[in-house]
Amino acid sequence: MLSKSKIKLIKSLSLKKFRDDHSLFVAEGTKLVVDLSTCFKCVLLVATKDWSVSHSSIHADEMIELSTDELSQISNQKSPQGVIAVFEKHNWSLSVDDLKSRLSIALDDVQDPGNLGTIIRIADWFGIKDVICSLHCADTYGPKTVQATMGALARVRVHYVDLATFLPDCKELPIYGTFMDGESIYEKGLSPYGIIVMGNEGNGISDSIRSLVSEKLLLPNYPFGAPTSESLNVAVATALVCGEFRRRVL
Amino acid sequence: MLSKSKIKLIKSLSLKKFRDDHSLFVAEGTKLVVDLSTCFKCVLLVATKDWSVSHSSIHADEMIELSTDELSQISNQKSPQGVIAVFEKHNWSLSVDDLKSRLSIALDDVQDPGNLGTIIRIADWFGIKDVICSLHCADTYGPKTVQATMGALARVRVHYVDLATFLPDCKELPIYGTFMDGESIYEKGLSPYGIIVMGNEGNGISDSIRSLVSEKLLLPNYPFGAPTSESLNVAVATALVCGEFRRRVL
Repeated sequence: MLSKSKIKLIKSLSLKKFRDDHSLFVAEGTKLVVDLSTCFKCVLLVATKDWSVSHSSIHADEMIELSTDELSQISNQKSPQGVIAVFEKHNWSLSVDDLKSRLSIALDDVQDPGNLGTIIRIADWFGIKDVICSLHCADTYGPKTVQATMGALARVRVHYVDLATFLPDCKELPIYGTFMDGESIYEKGLSPYGIIVMGNEGNGISDSIRSLVSEKLLLPNYPFGAPTSESLNVAVATALVCGEFRRRVL
Repeated sequence: MLSKSKIKLIKSLSLKKFRDDHSLFVAEGTKLVVDLSTCFKCVLLVATKDWSVSHSSIHADEMIELSTDELSQISNQKSPQGVIAVFEKHNWSLSVDDLKSRLSIALDDVQDPGNLGTIIRIADWFGIKDVICSLHCADTYGPKTVQATMGALARVRVHYVDLATFLPDCKELPIYGTFMDGESIYEKGLSPYGIIVMGNEGNGISDSIRSLVSEKLLLPNYPFGAPTSESLNVAVATALVCGEFRRRVL
């Protein structure tokens, strides 16, 4: 039996205000819950009996069994997968020194939760440990973002900083960004470490951040200069940029 | 004034059955409508007076002016952009000969409309003219797919065929697909023409299609073999594969 106050808590966590107030977030579905439980403290696990039996190794401060019908009433998903978990958020510390021997991603106001989640999944795929969000990016712990990460949040640290004051502290590192007037990424030397800045869906990298980018790249379309879609989706562009950095050292 | 029967028609086109019956589809927003009007016949354009005045060169069989409020009542979008258009669908013909000197994409049951739309946008970016969908793929003309293409449908032809009978007719062409046991795409010779098969979101390329793939590729993660997300989103993987083909000849 799930108390009314717990139902209210779970539902409230779809809003950022309550995620921030409680420092908690919700994840649904087996893969997500299993992956996240390796890295985040699970304070409440609500699952069907079948799910609990087949995932008995998952630890949670409190576990409650519900029927499939009861679960679907508190689920955010069209097809609930037998488990909803409430986890404690992480507040990762971020030091410039940590970034020095690594490739990292910085996001300048990426606003779509699905794009942010997909970018975190891409970071995970390419072994990138830190995603540094500007303060106006979508919230990592929102349900759509968490869902789109497919569990990558267990391996990628997401930070929120004022990029305009943070990036100048990283001046020992190359800072990359893509622009229409950049140099083709396929022809340019790329360092195995540094920060890749990706911009907002509609406006790209803002002027204040552009001036902090030391290496201006271009992602060319094919055939170069042919009429085409004006731009790539920001998650797709992130994948192409990260892929080019990594393929050189694979 | 928009008649009740036209409102009913526009709303009905959110369902595939009615899109098929009428051979029509709906697009919303300036960029989409302007791009698509270069390639598709516009049978009905519903727009605010401001929009009509500033886009007077767009031709439609019938044009109706509505207020912003009236438009928002028939819109599928959270923030309507002043225009909704009804276009005639295309039924492109597909001949194996047309594919011989080109790179094309085939999709084996890609089911998410957003993924399909993003893949059509990626095809456009990389100068790929034909996307060949299996019969169980999402519908190209559904509202979410059309929206995600960002107008790329004006430059990319999407076909629906039974891949299991179509691909054997393409045996003169290399047929590429990504698999866990393939050869690293970064180390393999790639032809400038051929068909790239991408698989379903959950299951990848089906067994019946796998046996028709002549060149088995692997998209390696980084560091190769490190624990990571199990997979990439199919649109992201499509971008990485197409990008690798194109970067070799850019």
